[in-house]
Amino acid sequence: MTTRVPVVERILSANDRMAEKNRELLDRTGLYSINIMASPGAGKTSLILKTLESLDGRLRLGVVEGDLASSIDADKAAAAGLPAVQINTGGECHLDAAMLSDALNSLPLSDLDLVLVENVGNLVCPANFQIGTHLNVLIASIPEGDDKPYKYPGMYRGVQVLIINKIDLLPYVPFDMDYFQRGVEVLNPGVVTFPVSCRTGEGMGDWVDWLVRKVKERRE
Amino acid sequence: MTTRVPVVERILSANDRMAEKNRELLDRTGLYSINIMASPGAGKTSLILKTLESLDGRLRLGVVEGDLASSIDADKAAAAGLPAVQINTGGECHLDAAMLSDALNSLPLSDLDLVLVENVGNLVCPANFQIGTHLNVLIASIPEGDDKPYKYPGMYRGVQVLIINKIDLLPYVPFDMDYFQRGVEVLNPGVVTFPVSCRTGEGMGDWVDWLVRKVKERRE
Repeated sequence: MTTRVPVVERILSANDRMAEKNRELLDRTGLYSINIMASPGAGKTSLILKTLESLDGRLRLGVVEGDLASSIDADKAAAAGLPAVQINTGGECHLDAAMLSDALNSLPLSDLDLVLVENVGNLVCPANFQIGTHLNVLIASIPEGDDKPYKYPGMYRGVQVLIINKIDLLPYVPFDMDYFQRGVEVLNPGVVTFPVSCRTGEGMGDWVDWLVRKVKERRE
Repeated sequence: MTTRVPVVERILSANDRMAEKNRELLDRTGLYSINIMASPGAGKTSLILKTLESLDGRLRLGVVEGDLASSIDADKAAAAGLPAVQINTGGECHLDAAMLSDALNSLPLSDLDLVLVENVGNLVCPANFQIGTHLNVLIASIPEGDDKPYKYPGMYRGVQVLIINKIDLLPYVPFDMDYFQRGVEVLNPGVVTFPVSCRTGEGMGDWVDWLVRKVKERRE
């Protein structure tokens, strides 16, 4: 008589395996890392640059910029004094773990506390690919409108932090914050939320204070 | 002696074949159709609603709305009195020709002059899939920033009309129109461009006059 032994296997895709390797590398180096996702033009690069300014030296940042084409964002980060790598995905609509692996190899990891990864501007595809970072951050933007959680549920579900950017434009565009927040709450109850304006700096203090605590907590 | 005859074959993907069928159906019914693409929140639905208002009865519109989830946009179009079909793509980041085929079957085609198709909000994937419409329109949005042509060249290359929306926000956000236009000109020289505000109605007259001419030209 033979006994059937159930074998439960977690099959990892090639991308997930590479994401795990990225995480191991980041953990080994004592680094914290964030995957920043948003629509085109919601303020990913602006958030990175304003975070640098608001941190005022409290954390050492490195930046990975993802775009289909151009080095506009990495050039901006480098001009602000940050170690920065640009990934051009060609036609791909998201970063993947192999791209991040290449980029991490080009950064001076042991001199950094935090790596900010700017994904391709897209509210769909980046949500489906883990890249190995510790935290997923979504930037919503006021002029995008208040219905985005209802239309892009996968993205709103998969993040731990929601930054609501361009609150300085609230007087000039129709945006029902209650309707927006209700949509978020259904998908991602209790997600940590920071309303900010990367342009005026409003709200940035709360975000960077939270970030500094998060990086320190991981080290204790 | 045998003679080799060169055989040049155009291999169509299943999607392209379906797109050709959609085009044949639209042409047979005497309909003109537009594929509207843009980032999330750039104003695709607003353009449709404001076009309806500005046309003031000169063309009979039908609407196909594409989103990952929700029927928010089709509900808005229906509330404005338009025959409207909502496509929910699930996780897909773009419409395809089969989705449009299903949607066309649900519209009263013989009662219409023009079908406006709102693609999924995304500056990457929709550019890679023909769906059978006559015209590709891209909506750029002022608060998205002036660097989008440089970062999303595939999308900017593949359209015949560029609508620059939310020009009412120009006083409140940084946007260098010359830099933007230079980026567009390199990728898509002479693309027909309409600066508008779907909120205030500014510029809508030129757009709908052009549209009416375009639909009439096709019939002559």
